[in-house]
Amino acid sequence: MKIAIAQLNFHIGNFAGNLAKMLDAVKKAKEQGADLVAFSELATCGYPPRDFLEFDDFIRESERTVKKLAKAAKGIAIVVGSPSRNPVIEGKDLYNSAFFLENGKIKQVAHKALLPTYDVFDEYRYFEPATEFNVIDFKGKKIALTICEDIWNIGNENPLYKVCPMDELIKQQPDFMLNVSASPFHYESAAARIHVVKANVKRYKIPMFYINHAGAQTELIFDGGSIVMSSNGKLVDELPYFKECIRTYDLDEVVKNKKNNEQPKDKMALIHDAIVVGVRDYFGKLGFKKAILGLSGGIDSALTAALAVKALGANNVRGILMPSQFSSDHSVNDARQLAENLGMQYDIMPVSGIYDAYMDILKPHFWGKEFNVTEENLQARSRGMLLMAMSNKFGNILLNTSNKSEMAVGYGTLYGDLCGGLSVIGDVYKTDVFKLSKYINRNGEIIPENTITKPPSAELRPNQKDSDSLPDYDVLDEILFQYIEQQQGPKELIKMGFDEKLVRRILRMVNINEFKRHQTAPVIRVSSKAFGMGRRMPIVGKYLS
Amino acid sequence: MKIAIAQLNFHIGNFAGNLAKMLDAVKKAKEQGADLVAFSELATCGYPPRDFLEFDDFIRESERTVKKLAKAAKGIAIVVGSPSRNPVIEGKDLYNSAFFLENGKIKQVAHKALLPTYDVFDEYRYFEPATEFNVIDFKGKKIALTICEDIWNIGNENPLYKVCPMDELIKQQPDFMLNVSASPFHYESAAARIHVVKANVKRYKIPMFYINHAGAQTELIFDGGSIVMSSNGKLVDELPYFKECIRTYDLDEVVKNKKNNEQPKDKMALIHDAIVVGVRDYFGKLGFKKAILGLSGGIDSALTAALAVKALGANNVRGILMPSQFSSDHSVNDARQLAENLGMQYDIMPVSGIYDAYMDILKPHFWGKEFNVTEENLQARSRGMLLMAMSNKFGNILLNTSNKSEMAVGYGTLYGDLCGGLSVIGDVYKTDVFKLSKYINRNGEIIPENTITKPPSAELRPNQKDSDSLPDYDVLDEILFQYIEQQQGPKELIKMGFDEKLVRRILRMVNINEFKRHQTAPVIRVSSKAFGMGRRMPIVGKYLS
Repeated sequence: MKIAIAQLNFHIGNFAGNLAKMLDAVKKAKEQGADLVAFSELATCGYPPRDFLEFDDFIRESERTVKKLAKAAKGIAIVVGSPSRNPVIEGKDLYNSAFFLENGKIKQVAHKALLPTYDVFDEYRYFEPATEFNVIDFKGKKIALTICEDIWNIGNENPLYKVCPMDELIKQQPDFMLNVSASPFHYESAAARIHVVKANVKRYKIPMFYINHAGAQTELIFDGGSIVMSSNGKLVDELPYFKECIRTYDLDEVVKNKKNNEQPKDKMALIHDAIVVGVRDYFGKLGFKKAILGLSGGIDSALTAALAVKALGANNVRGILMPSQFSSDHSVNDARQLAENLGMQYDIMPVSGIYDAYMDILKPHFWGKEFNVTEENLQARSRGMLLMAMSNKFGNILLNTSNKSEMAVGYGTLYGDLCGGLSVIGDVYKTDVFKLSKYINRNGEIIPENTITKPPSAELRPNQKDSDSLPDYDVLDEILFQYIEQQQGPKELIKMGFDEKLVRRILRMVNINEFKRHQTAPVIRVSSKAFGMGRRMPIVGKYLS
Repeated sequence: MKIAIAQLNFHIGNFAGNLAKMLDAVKKAKEQGADLVAFSELATCGYPPRDFLEFDDFIRESERTVKKLAKAAKGIAIVVGSPSRNPVIEGKDLYNSAFFLENGKIKQVAHKALLPTYDVFDEYRYFEPATEFNVIDFKGKKIALTICEDIWNIGNENPLYKVCPMDELIKQQPDFMLNVSASPFHYESAAARIHVVKANVKRYKIPMFYINHAGAQTELIFDGGSIVMSSNGKLVDELPYFKECIRTYDLDEVVKNKKNNEQPKDKMALIHDAIVVGVRDYFGKLGFKKAILGLSGGIDSALTAALAVKALGANNVRGILMPSQFSSDHSVNDARQLAENLGMQYDIMPVSGIYDAYMDILKPHFWGKEFNVTEENLQARSRGMLLMAMSNKFGNILLNTSNKSEMAVGYGTLYGDLCGGLSVIGDVYKTDVFKLSKYINRNGEIIPENTITKPPSAELRPNQKDSDSLPDYDVLDEILFQYIEQQQGPKELIKMGFDEKLVRRILRMVNINEFKRHQTAPVIRVSSKAFGMGRRMPIVGKYLS
């Protein structure tokens, strides 16, 4: 028996587009001699459909797509993820299902039992968990069909669920496991997936075909990396990361396989590729081509520009240099050098005139008050407004250039440098911004050396340095990582050896700036805990603040 | 037996403050002769604690608060909501629990079984559902103790859960039901709660004491309105809305009660009071006193100002009038009149100079391009920046004045009139903005008559009217209500008699503007479906767009 994995990039709510893509893949799988082709979780409607699932019309469109796809299931069987209705009145109205299509019809439906409801996942918001489990008979083989999280309750020390779907299915003696997933990227997710697939294969002693989605949906990047594993735990194949791919495997050969074919997993390379796909799909799926961003001469905007050029092409990225009286000479030079290295268009717009116009109006009202963060914010906001005007006039999208460290501690101006339609590096700590910039320069200078080596500064007052108001990024980022990604509290951080006063100060900065993050652009997620939909914090809380 | 209901306003993460408030209430309940005093759901840590629950330190603080409160349970028993740990490895690590404290100790703990995970609720994100149910023996009576959603699976035609905790508890023959809740306001929630309490009382034929939280947590307003219902379904008492209150009831008298004591429920009065509490608590819980807002002479900013003055006092609200060349004469006069009626400070800052400064820089780059939404946005953004500068310099919070209709269709400028720390009327449709304004004026003119009667306009180009680009608000709001609150799709809307082209256009406007709403301030929720945490939509979707 030959099984095809169709690792594709779906678009939420684009039923016609998703169907066309699947019909094309069915054709290709047939050409590859496949008896069965499998698509990823909720492939008909795209993942995550979020509250669109609450619309009957959206479910009807999903059902129609399954029916149309079923007609193509001739000479080949198809497995496709799609929402389905729960006929029982009690419980949620929907299931997260995988349809088995054969001979032009729906032959069988499997429902998801383990519904991830943590971090970026909200599945129990929509779906009823399955309580019945049946293998699928196909051409003399029995298939244990599960959906994503269904296989994730083993292989970890603190299982989230009391049931384990494969424990039920294995009683019916399946020949292999087929798991349809939509598993989003973070820089350790590919390794985690292999670990979980291996834990399942070891426990149930049959091969697994694991199909993932590939492509970005706003903040979530689905990295592909679909897995075929033999029953002896060898990695027969790991499909490309971040790319669409259709590959067919002979079940007998998978069973006999003795080789490991794992892809390399370099953290910076993965983050780089994830962000590039994140930017490319954000623009592509919204129907935009061109981006704009401010270039300060600093490393954050330089890195963002380099990533955007990689994603959209140099012709589609425009940089705006907006020096003020506080900008150093090298800032403009560094920004100009970057734009030239990248081959992208740039304009220079000095902002002092705008600042003066604001101050003309505000001066009488500010009488007796000292220069403070207000005037710093005004500069940042003047720049934000110019960028938005260019974005509006030329119909492009403004990219936000804030990094995770500054977003965490609120070191950024709301409606100023926090403007933008998409936060490109908002899930990358400053220490990793440096590493990623060096990765960009791995084959020669793209980001100017001076941009990488000079001390970070917002240049909003004379001779300002980040280190005037923040601890060294090495220390700051480690505290932030422990607090944000690892959920460690003050007691645990102090036990790790961090200074108590510093810990209290940093955690307070993170917590009192929740209101800013509430209003910022969606952040491309590359870590296990990004700001945005996966981190839900109260604003009026009074905790560690 | 005498039972005290303590309907209090807790603060998320403010363990010391919440404990002090409860200790004071225990004292008052004792003075009222109570044998038992009950607090609301998750009272120790405040509701909703959201992802703070993922921090071990936060759970330890909750546990400490319960222990300290237990020491006060002498001569009186206490029921208090608090998170507790699940000792079993499988499943989520926490329960949403209610502790029964007696004789200085924890006597018994009940866990929540039905975990709301829809709209603004995320409880399955954190909690394991209860599977065991036991009544509590206290002074010869048996108490069926449940938590909020536990009683909501009956009284509706499409129950969300397969189990019903009271169906289990009733087998142990309890004498009365005690339900500790944190049930957020929308303008029909008080009626819905009475309906559900009555459905329970009718089914189980014993009285119910229902304790709600009172006060605001950012977007969620908890409206109190705690309920005491006799076993014959009579409303013995409904506690005040939006206010703290401690009242004690004699169980024997509750059982015998024959009167209905329901509060009046006027939609505009409820919305008014909810928003006032929402503004007051947002400021109070963040430690701010003063607000600022732009006054355009239009009805949205006038209504927002009136509500803010009611919440914070006239001395704490400052209005900024920012006329441009497109502002009509009456705009400034109407805004000035409003400020005078309200007795609040106002300043006038003409914005044309700023607009000109931007255009000086942008003109060469805009060469050959026509005046369009870019220039309109620049005006709105110049105003936003001035307001933010005043907010920063004087340490007050900018109030956002956008209404729900314009937020829905994207009729507003990101970083312009969409600026602000809190959206005051962002869940009020324009047609209700008029009604609420008339309600404000019920005892005499506060909002100038001309502001209410003139045709709505953004005044961003000569003689602009909202009706140039939008259908009449009567029609628009009804389509929006059906789509947003009622989840009706295009097919259903057309069946209702709305023009197909108009329906498609409006739904498209709603969907393509998701990116704007993603970046706006938290919205005080007054309807069953507000923008924000309760409505989670994809940005890159291609559905009805």
